[in-house]
Amino acid sequence: MDIVEFFELSAGRWSSMRTSHHPAAQQGSGKSTIEIDLLDKSDPAVIQLCEKYQVDPTTALLGARLTWEGFLDGETRKQTGSTVLVPIAGDTQNSGKLLGEMGTTQQTPIVGHYEVSDAMGLTLITESDTLYSKERIWFESPNVRFRHSVLKQAGGFSLASFCSEVRLGAVKPDPKTADATATK
Amino acid sequence: MDIVEFFELSAGRWSSMRTSHHPAAQQGSGKSTIEIDLLDKSDPAVIQLCEKYQVDPTTALLGARLTWEGFLDGETRKQTGSTVLVPIAGDTQNSGKLLGEMGTTQQTPIVGHYEVSDAMGLTLITESDTLYSKERIWFESPNVRFRHSVLKQAGGFSLASFCSEVRLGAVKPDPKTADATATK
Repeated sequence: MDIVEFFELSAGRWSSMRTSHHPAAQQGSGKSTIEIDLLDKSDPAVIQLCEKYQVDPTTALLGARLTWEGFLDGETRKQTGSTVLVPIAGDTQNSGKLLGEMGTTQQTPIVGHYEVSDAMGLTLITESDTLYSKERIWFESPNVRFRHSVLKQAGGFSLASFCSEVRLGAVKPDPKTADATATK
Repeated sequence: MDIVEFFELSAGRWSSMRTSHHPAAQQGSGKSTIEIDLLDKSDPAVIQLCEKYQVDPTTALLGARLTWEGFLDGETRKQTGSTVLVPIAGDTQNSGKLLGEMGTTQQTPIVGHYEVSDAMGLTLITESDTLYSKERIWFESPNVRFRHSVLKQAGGFSLASFCSEVRLGAVKPDPKTADATATK
């Protein structure tokens, strides 16, 4: 599996159940619906994000727009948001940079390093001077995916989270038999 | 890392935070303290478990006694239990059978297939005619480990769980520098 196949398999609507574990503290949880729409590499949103990072847009492999809405446990205010992600071709077919933006106002640029493998799924590492984040997303089946992330600060492990995501709507055929290269 | 090193790194007391995700249903959570004590392969509990499964006790690599106590969220009744696990040497150094018992009365024998690797940690697959369980346990660091399990029934994915575990008491040195073969 390469990053384009990974994005293609991720496209669609997902019901996501999320739990956060703070060591020696509380658990937090929430439920949301996530929609992942693929964008062509010539899409204005993809080109705009590349330009923001001064990355040559022709190295973009594709784009994805993520839109979510959901609730945190015990809260009635709906959480909504949207972001665009763009994987950039790396030295190898299985790794490279992932451009994105974080936060509701999309003011915080993030550049992560991704690696994709059949065994591990997608691993995304984002680092700054003060924060280290590692997220792994993998498919249990074409219609069930899991996400696990760890956040570390100077003092060590500070937050772990786990998401179970089940595809809503049309069930995806098994990628082993589908023509996964059709849109490339 | 092989299975013996994995057990050695697991020995000790852990504070465990657990969450279960039932698709299209509720989340469940709990907190517990888990104690993992290593047993020599000549320990009567190891030999007894091997004999129960008609496995030659000389193929046992070591044993571990797991003891836990904790609470499920919203319940006041303490959950306690204890079990013995025994890994059996397989055809390769990184895989084999894991003998154990499940349930508070330890009436239900379980024989799983384990695989250990540096990248993935321990993967344990347990199958019966009606149930398929896959658990993965990996170390984020010598003092933080994560567990993820998926339970499948005939109808597909039925339960996912995730645990964050932080070592209590004496902090373990990094296995890359410690003499991990000392007790072998």
